[in-house]
Amino acid sequence: MIIQIDPNIREIDFNNLTEKIKGLHYTSSRVSTQFGEYVIGVGKKPFDIRSIGTMPGILDIHRVSDAYKLVSKKWKVNDTIIDLGEGVRLGTGHFAMMAGPCSIESEEQVASTIKHLVGQGIRIMRGGVYKPRSSPYSFRGLGPDGLKMWYEQAREAGVRIITEVMMTEQIEGMYDYVDIFQVGARNSQNFNLLDALGKVDKPVLLKRGMSGTINELLQSAEYIFSNGNEIIMLCERGISTYESAYRNTMDVNAIAMLKEKTHLPVIADPSHGIGLRSYVPQIALAGVMAGADGVILEVHERPEKAFSDAQQTLSYQEAANLYQGLKKAYDLRESLM
Amino acid sequence: MIIQIDPNIREIDFNNLTEKIKGLHYTSSRVSTQFGEYVIGVGKKPFDIRSIGTMPGILDIHRVSDAYKLVSKKWKVNDTIIDLGEGVRLGTGHFAMMAGPCSIESEEQVASTIKHLVGQGIRIMRGGVYKPRSSPYSFRGLGPDGLKMWYEQAREAGVRIITEVMMTEQIEGMYDYVDIFQVGARNSQNFNLLDALGKVDKPVLLKRGMSGTINELLQSAEYIFSNGNEIIMLCERGISTYESAYRNTMDVNAIAMLKEKTHLPVIADPSHGIGLRSYVPQIALAGVMAGADGVILEVHERPEKAFSDAQQTLSYQEAANLYQGLKKAYDLRESLM
Amino acid sequence: MIIQIDPNIREIDFNNLTEKIKGLHYTSSRVSTQFGEYVIGVGKKPFDIRSIGTMPGILDIHRVSDAYKLVSKKWKVNDTIIDLGEGVRLGTGHFAMMAGPCSIESEEQVASTIKHLVGQGIRIMRGGVYKPRSSPYSFRGLGPDGLKMWYEQAREAGVRIITEVMMTEQIEGMYDYVDIFQVGARNSQNFNLLDALGKVDKPVLLKRGMSGTINELLQSAEYIFSNGNEIIMLCERGISTYESAYRNTMDVNAIAMLKEKTHLPVIADPSHGIGLRSYVPQIALAGVMAGADGVILEVHERPEKAFSDAQQTLSYQEAANLYQGLKKAYDLRESLM
Amino acid sequence: MIIQIDPNIREIDFNNLTEKIKGLHYTSSRVSTQFGEYVIGVGKKPFDIRSIGTMPGILDIHRVSDAYKLVSKKWKVNDTIIDLGEGVRLGTGHFAMMAGPCSIESEEQVASTIKHLVGQGIRIMRGGVYKPRSSPYSFRGLGPDGLKMWYEQAREAGVRIITEVMMTEQIEGMYDYVDIFQVGARNSQNFNLLDALGKVDKPVLLKRGMSGTINELLQSAEYIFSNGNEIIMLCERGISTYESAYRNTMDVNAIAMLKEKTHLPVIADPSHGIGLRSYVPQIALAGVMAGADGVILEVHERPEKAFSDAQQTLSYQEAANLYQGLKKAYDLRESLM
Repeated sequence: MIIQIDPNIREIDFNNLTEKIKGLHYTSSRVSTQFGEYVIGVGKKPFDIRSIGTMPGILDIHRVSDAYKLVSKKWKVNDTIIDLGEGVRLGTGHFAMMAGPCSIESEEQVASTIKHLVGQGIRIMRGGVYKPRSSPYSFRGLGPDGLKMWYEQAREAGVRIITEVMMTEQIEGMYDYVDIFQVGARNSQNFNLLDALGKVDKPVLLKRGMSGTINELLQSAEYIFSNGNEIIMLCERGISTYESAYRNTMDVNAIAMLKEKTHLPVIADPSHGIGLRSYVPQIALAGVMAGADGVILEVHERPEKAFSDAQQTLSYQEAANLYQGLKKAYDLRESLM
Repeated sequence: MIIQIDPNIREIDFNNLTEKIKGLHYTSSRVSTQFGEYVIGVGKKPFDIRSIGTMPGILDIHRVSDAYKLVSKKWKVNDTIIDLGEGVRLGTGHFAMMAGPCSIESEEQVASTIKHLVGQGIRIMRGGVYKPRSSPYSFRGLGPDGLKMWYEQAREAGVRIITEVMMTEQIEGMYDYVDIFQVGARNSQNFNLLDALGKVDKPVLLKRGMSGTINELLQSAEYIFSNGNEIIMLCERGISTYESAYRNTMDVNAIAMLKEKTHLPVIADPSHGIGLRSYVPQIALAGVMAGADGVILEVHERPEKAFSDAQQTLSYQEAANLYQGLKKAYDLRESLM
Repeated sequence: MIIQIDPNIREIDFNNLTEKIKGLHYTSSRVSTQFGEYVIGVGKKPFDIRSIGTMPGILDIHRVSDAYKLVSKKWKVNDTIIDLGEGVRLGTGHFAMMAGPCSIESEEQVASTIKHLVGQGIRIMRGGVYKPRSSPYSFRGLGPDGLKMWYEQAREAGVRIITEVMMTEQIEGMYDYVDIFQVGARNSQNFNLLDALGKVDKPVLLKRGMSGTINELLQSAEYIFSNGNEIIMLCERGISTYESAYRNTMDVNAIAMLKEKTHLPVIADPSHGIGLRSYVPQIALAGVMAGADGVILEVHERPEKAFSDAQQTLSYQEAANLYQGLKKAYDLRESLM
Repeated sequence: MIIQIDPNIREIDFNNLTEKIKGLHYTSSRVSTQFGEYVIGVGKKPFDIRSIGTMPGILDIHRVSDAYKLVSKKWKVNDTIIDLGEGVRLGTGHFAMMAGPCSIESEEQVASTIKHLVGQGIRIMRGGVYKPRSSPYSFRGLGPDGLKMWYEQAREAGVRIITEVMMTEQIEGMYDYVDIFQVGARNSQNFNLLDALGKVDKPVLLKRGMSGTINELLQSAEYIFSNGNEIIMLCERGISTYESAYRNTMDVNAIAMLKEKTHLPVIADPSHGIGLRSYVPQIALAGVMAGADGVILEVHERPEKAFSDAQQTLSYQEAANLYQGLKKAYDLRESLM
């Protein structure tokens, strides 16, 4: 069950509530977010919802039997809209385009990318300053200095920054320079990192793990939410399957299901979803048609020279052709659904 | 290598050709189809293509290093268009909609389905009379009588029939009543069945196996082609992965790749591709956007009463809404690509 | 439910029985095998088992809620032992070693293999005369002539033959020369072939499909059994997963589970289970330890010259070392379980 | 390439070495561990190994083209043996048994487990004090207090502690109470955690990710090694596949391959490898037969009352039966290989 309580609930009423829940043999957890106060009860016994709903200090109560609660559409019918300021919005009705290089490499590269994005009317730029790499001998990113350099250029151009955070210790140092914290596929069940991001008041884009189920992704989002941060978006980026003709298998089924099960925005990542440049446009379009609220793309001035992910990165020209098509596909989908 | 030879090549010239190929330590296979005569050479040694291309009786020669040869776009640049008569065409530029029940159940059901299809301008009806079922105790289809009953109604309405053939012995009995032979996922590498369908002059829709790779699908098509039948279409119907929230994982990546690698038409099967009714429309749209030349859908007057696949079958009303959207999505994609 | 009936049940008693079952809204199927007569009832309604069990002509009755019935250990507690004559037995307590080449290639090869096997005390030889190959241009086996040649040598040496049958039309021609019909992974759900093998009175080794579930394998065995043939063994040969460092993932979990769920013998195929020669011994031993009743191995006088599966085939010397170890592992396991 | 350098190499010689490597267009990384000093060169150009090997201050040099270098058997032929003191050793020739509950729950539980282990001659106890849980509302472990309580009892009994560390911040607080740091499957590519554990001088057990490849596991181990810690063991705990009849698919192929590719010890985790109590013994035996140097098991006084993983945990009696069998299987395998 999820109970929304009055933020000013009296202590005696709150105690009565938790006693009542304990009496049902449910565990209870109190959750405070930037937008509300909740009590989550977990248990199996049937109960009369009115016997709790009519207690003082209770604003709302719902039965939610899913393993994820607050991120479920059963709790919150209206989709979450994320406002990044200056008119940049994300979520149902606000198609979001995010693009940029795999890795932040240099001032010139940042300048060139921002120029490309602004010219295309794109307001959110992706890029990595901390890079998770399979091998310890690979390039691991420019780190905090790269982030600050990027920030200065982005701020001036009115462009938002989304970048990956890999560990809780990085959060504080990144906070002032980041608009969206990205959690990578490898950290999709790094629960301590999720806890920590739940205590931040900036948006989080949470990627699905390489072999993460849809339910696990929603439960990972619940970690962030139940620690206090409601501003979350989910990202499908391809899963690990037996097929080796491409890098990952883009799971459009997951996009369609997530849009039904959660009120959080869902983003498609076709660059990782197939991992081969010449197919990225088709997969981006498919992701939008399956229901995605936005697309995150890898682009680079000279893809073949990129420090990482060269084989799945679009050139500016390829990307420019795609942006228009994605917007048309989004509009068509909105008109159909 | 693929060599197209003059159908009237002199025996001495043909023998010289095969000697020449043998001299390169290549194996050679002669292939005769309804549209041409070919010699396929398989080997590894480099050779001067002109030394063969200039021999008498040779119309064309190409190096094709893929494991599949004649179905490769490296051999045939122009996409295959399949003509089903009376203006019903399939392939690049001719969007194909196929719909119908999982199983043919009764005369009434056939009549009702045909009425629905004709009302929607759909000219190809799917339905099973031989049903592959995991359990021997499940309904296994109406068999030949059902097929004949269906055929009579379909002929009258100008509707084409696509239905699954499960074994070579069935081909002859089905031949007169079928417009497209379907090979199911479980028979995707039933090489004897593929050989036999290669000797038929009717179109074949070949489904990808549950754990079949893209390369294996193309090689299975090569079986049909190299036995003489060039009129083949491929069908992506979802693959087996670790995710169990839905039935199969629709692999839109495969659709995009197949359209680059082969000249054969590619069909999307969203009903099996996700296996859950409420998500079939989104997945159908995604399949089209990824590049599919057509969609095959399960529809039923009362899905909840269907003998099989009830949970993934659309009602007429749901399907009618979808058909229009699919056409619009197809037109948008054509305008973009 | 499974009901074993008296083979001499009176017609009136049989009709009463089927009426009774119909009255419960169960479907019923009559199954006659070489060892018994059964009625299989499939439905959901609870019923009093005594109300049927006490009817005339009923020998035994059990509730079996699995999708597979007659192959379930819930029906038959005693494990199936398969007798191949002259003291060659298979099943619990009778460790079975089968070995031989991937493909039958020549008289000399057959002679050499038989000499190797007999020298090692091995009585069952594997080998393919019909080969399922991904590409139509690969070697597809010596066919019936190869089988007869092989048979003559094997008979003389007292060696049994296991070989793959790919289509129903082949069964009759193969019948006189085969001791065990093998159904390959690609035909694991070729239900017509399973039906046909159910009408044969020779043992069948049924391989699991590349992405077949344990339940699907058992239901495929049920096809054979319910058509009349009880002499079936199951074979785990590796499944298709995301890992590409080897050919297939040997699923020892499946071996352990199958031994609990069915009374049929379970065979491990480590050659396909990993697909790399140097690891075949370890995987064979692991398969035995997980519960396998036997092992089927690819061996060849000169593996590097084999027509097919060269990279996973053991030399005679490598195989000879392994046979002894497998027997010791089997004895250890029997002493532990 | 891997170059082992004299720990007392002169600065001028070291600089000449790195210049030489740079001249080959290789990147170079200096690695200092508790046992040696290395320079890792990564690049593609062929070079004369003697031109470097004869430079002053060089102890050894090898070409290693794998993505993992120092953990490869191509570098270090002798297997790593890990010494935990008081005669407790791990690695080739020293079979290691580790057992204990999923979660540390109470003083009584710890006492009971230690008594069971000591009675069986087992010297390493597993247990979780920080639990990674899919849902934020599940029990997440007793934390540092639980660890200290456990440590006191274990020290007294001469029992070693292996427990999971989930984040770098926990390492310092755990250091004094832990004998082996475990990295869980979800953190298998948490590169910051691996970096940090590379700076610790205590052994690390690294689990394979749910969809981690064998190569990725070895590269994750390289992270730890290249940060300075050579005392690492690898653990196969089942992978994510399409089969849902059990929890994970125990990959015995990986055990066999890892033993060939790396000098590090390999441990089998059958409890997670199948996830169902009644099959854990068979899978443990299979893991040993495939080549494992040890087994890690979940045991509990009353499995059905365990706070977590109840369905895959053995009772003391079940475990006691298994320990003896595992030792016999290990001895048999050693005699065969």
